[in-house]
Amino acid sequence: MLADHNRHQLRIRRVPLDTGRENVVVISRRSKALRAEIFRGFSRVELSLNGKVLLATLLITDDDTLAAADEIGLSEPAFRRFGEAADTAVTVTPASAPESLEAVRAKIHGRTLTAAEIGAIIQDLAHYRYSDMEIAAFLIGSASFVTSDELLALTRAMAEVGTRLTWPDPVVVDKHCIGGIPGNRTSMVVVPIVAAHGLPIPKTSSRAITSPAGTADTMEVLARVNVGADEMKAIVSSCNGCVIWGGHVNLSPADDVLISVERPLSLDTREQMVASIMSKKIAAGSTHLLIDIPVGPTAKVTGALEAMRLRKLFEFVGDRFGRAVEVITTDGSQPIGNGIGPVLEANDVMAVLGNEPDAPRDLREKSLRLAAHLLEYDPKLRGGAGYQRARELLDSGAALKQMQRIIDAQGPSTCNTELGSRSFDVKAAQDGVVSAIDCLRLNRLARTAGAPLDKGAGIRLFKKIGDRVEQGEPLYRVYSFDQPEHDLAASAAAADSGYAIGGKSAGE
Amino acid sequence: MLADHNRHQLRIRRVPLDTGRENVVVISRRSKALRAEIFRGFSRVELSLNGKVLLATLLITDDDTLAAADEIGLSEPAFRRFGEAADTAVTVTPASAPESLEAVRAKIHGRTLTAAEIGAIIQDLAHYRYSDMEIAAFLIGSASFVTSDELLALTRAMAEVGTRLTWPDPVVVDKHCIGGIPGNRTSMVVVPIVAAHGLPIPKTSSRAITSPAGTADTMEVLARVNVGADEMKAIVSSCNGCVIWGGHVNLSPADDVLISVERPLSLDTREQMVASIMSKKIAAGSTHLLIDIPVGPTAKVTGALEAMRLRKLFEFVGDRFGRAVEVITTDGSQPIGNGIGPVLEANDVMAVLGNEPDAPRDLREKSLRLAAHLLEYDPKLRGGAGYQRARELLDSGAALKQMQRIIDAQGPSTCNTELGSRSFDVKAAQDGVVSAIDCLRLNRLARTAGAPLDKGAGIRLFKKIGDRVEQGEPLYRVYSFDQPEHDLAASAAAADSGYAIGGKSAGE
Repeated sequence: MLADHNRHQLRIRRVPLDTGRENVVVISRRSKALRAEIFRGFSRVELSLNGKVLLATLLITDDDTLAAADEIGLSEPAFRRFGEAADTAVTVTPASAPESLEAVRAKIHGRTLTAAEIGAIIQDLAHYRYSDMEIAAFLIGSASFVTSDELLALTRAMAEVGTRLTWPDPVVVDKHCIGGIPGNRTSMVVVPIVAAHGLPIPKTSSRAITSPAGTADTMEVLARVNVGADEMKAIVSSCNGCVIWGGHVNLSPADDVLISVERPLSLDTREQMVASIMSKKIAAGSTHLLIDIPVGPTAKVTGALEAMRLRKLFEFVGDRFGRAVEVITTDGSQPIGNGIGPVLEANDVMAVLGNEPDAPRDLREKSLRLAAHLLEYDPKLRGGAGYQRARELLDSGAALKQMQRIIDAQGPSTCNTELGSRSFDVKAAQDGVVSAIDCLRLNRLARTAGAPLDKGAGIRLFKKIGDRVEQGEPLYRVYSFDQPEHDLAASAAAADSGYAIGGKSAGE
Repeated sequence: MLADHNRHQLRIRRVPLDTGRENVVVISRRSKALRAEIFRGFSRVELSLNGKVLLATLLITDDDTLAAADEIGLSEPAFRRFGEAADTAVTVTPASAPESLEAVRAKIHGRTLTAAEIGAIIQDLAHYRYSDMEIAAFLIGSASFVTSDELLALTRAMAEVGTRLTWPDPVVVDKHCIGGIPGNRTSMVVVPIVAAHGLPIPKTSSRAITSPAGTADTMEVLARVNVGADEMKAIVSSCNGCVIWGGHVNLSPADDVLISVERPLSLDTREQMVASIMSKKIAAGSTHLLIDIPVGPTAKVTGALEAMRLRKLFEFVGDRFGRAVEVITTDGSQPIGNGIGPVLEANDVMAVLGNEPDAPRDLREKSLRLAAHLLEYDPKLRGGAGYQRARELLDSGAALKQMQRIIDAQGPSTCNTELGSRSFDVKAAQDGVVSAIDCLRLNRLARTAGAPLDKGAGIRLFKKIGDRVEQGEPLYRVYSFDQPEHDLAASAAAADSGYAIGGKSAGE
């Protein structure tokens, strides 16, 4: 038995390949453990050592500098996750597909899954046991129909697999936007308003995956966002609020895995979205939740019917888990605020909080409206007084002061927060009135310019829908740091500016 | 413009990584073309040179020996497909997802696709423009429903994207089994019988992807199977038949891509299977086609209802494309013949053709039955005379002689055709009667032992369903070459032999 064991052992070698989220390992075509081509038939391998197990996708090499015959090369994510030193001997065997994949196949063929089956899938997802293809299989297999029971089981399983937070307060509020609208950084205005009022609002946000900025990326311009659960509790206890990165708290690791496949495929299925958002909010311990669904021609939700179906799903799951959930639809026809990209968005947020005269009015108004809804959850506040209270807190500077407290509690930002040193203007091709702005196009353009990795890359909008423009007048300015990004963005903008300009103004 | 162009140029470096079918490239985290992390947001890159374009999935490295800042590392398949020498400068830009992916997303969300949309998807698949995740998205998105029009469009698009063969004869027959049954090498008996009769039967077969042998793998024990289209025509014109590898003829390249993702996911959807098989047969120019659907508890089709639905689909597509299609269901409860794995299966085939006394009766009878159906397509043969004619040709040695002609025409095998040097027996745990044999389990076991890569690895069955066994009596023998395969197979067989033994024989 021991001899048998040794025969499949290979020594770990660290391979300097960043394979994203997927575990990838490399073995030699002349591997001592088992012939590479035979492994390939199984397509995945299992590394084990003292009960620790890692599943990985296999690449084969003829080059000893990547993996010699007695070695197994671990790409960076696999090396990090397995957590063993180079040269450690590990047992390598062909991996069976995770058992829960049988349920995924059943789902693809139209069967309803039990809570136990869904739980097993989520466990395997959270522990990186699925390949990218297998993750896609689960997502798409569940895209055509998900029963109410499946949705509840999925939400519960996803909420239970990671960190769970609890709070001493009877009312813990939170807000969430389903995303897709550039510049829409309302959380960073809403949190200080609500926190200044005295309601706890422990906000965890995401980083961008395919968009030019997530709220966590933008907040990072102002403060540290890689904050753990214990520290988060201390911050909320002293400031009533925070705006931190959810990934660091590990609230719903299975969801993080699912999203990393959903985004590149541009998949947005209703039930998956509801389970994703609600699982994180349940794990985060919020009791009262406001969901923002922007509706517009290039938003994630393009019509009222789709918005209503989504609202009902959020309400249903909220009710079953005993959380107060309110869903509002908002204008998603164009970006909110003037900036797209972390630094530019952070500027917008601070201008609104600072009541600066040129602060973007749409960001201010939308944030006040959202804050008003959340403040109404305070039993001590008179019904209908939410909006006025929110405006008081913003206009008086109380919200700005609260934001400073939160920033101080989270700690200083360590990013380069300068605006991109290179820029170009995109100009109106004709006289007229801006009739439409393509959110997807601007998101992609800001991303091409370097956001969110370059905090100071992005887009500053000069014109919004309804604005009159003259031919040659700048519509927006694109910022980047390096020439390649600048060039790519310039040719992308030249191909399609994302702006439609019509013949007449709204007022005519 | 030229300056802009040069900025995104990197020099090709060949990276000794075998990434299977997927195009994978490696760039440095300090790449001169564009920052790696920014590329990652797009997840796929496009290489272009003089109008030639390659889409590839991106890995990032910190190691200059894989890709320096001014280089792009091409893994083996990408290097081969792009076909440019190392050090050639290529333009590298973030890749947009193939446009046809929009149709895949529409399909996932329940929309019916047009023929043009399906055609675009198939073109992109055949040209390796889809990532594995995107291929999975298409397969699973089409798993829940496919309309008749979609099925026809899919079949047509798949048939048209590769090589198309034409034959001078009015009747060109072919047979195809949907697969899943170990040892089921009827084609290698049927082709020489039918060819000896004088009907053209240009048979292209597949290689194993996850099974221990495809017909092409087994035929390769006896003759060369990597035969191109022109050579194939010459062979069929002189011998009436052939048994070659379809992949070399490139009959349905899109299907080859789809299958490479279907198999690891163990996806078998009805419409996909019909489009896959029918597109290859249409491209191969056959006019009369016999489809074999084995039915059994561990076969691909487990019940009569499912078999009937599949039959109707084959008939429907055949009718619309003007091909005579006949579908028969056969016993899929256990392996056919005694051998599993290329050499052992080839032995069975030659024993049947040689009328040897210990030739497996089930392989002989099934082959005769299939050949009988095909011979009935000969207008000159009296109706109902097919079986008798098939038996004459087999018993007289005419089929064996025809097989020798075909082998001579295809050319000699270059494989090691010895049986595995290591073996162990799996024995009955109790007295009784074999009541069931798990085809999936035996397939996996033969694969673990080294088949099809080791032609001589595999399983020789001593007992079939209904056979009486005594405790300790060998059920089957497992052959392999190297100790690691031997050990793995032995522990897999010890965990589950795949045999069920009941208390009473069928005769009692």
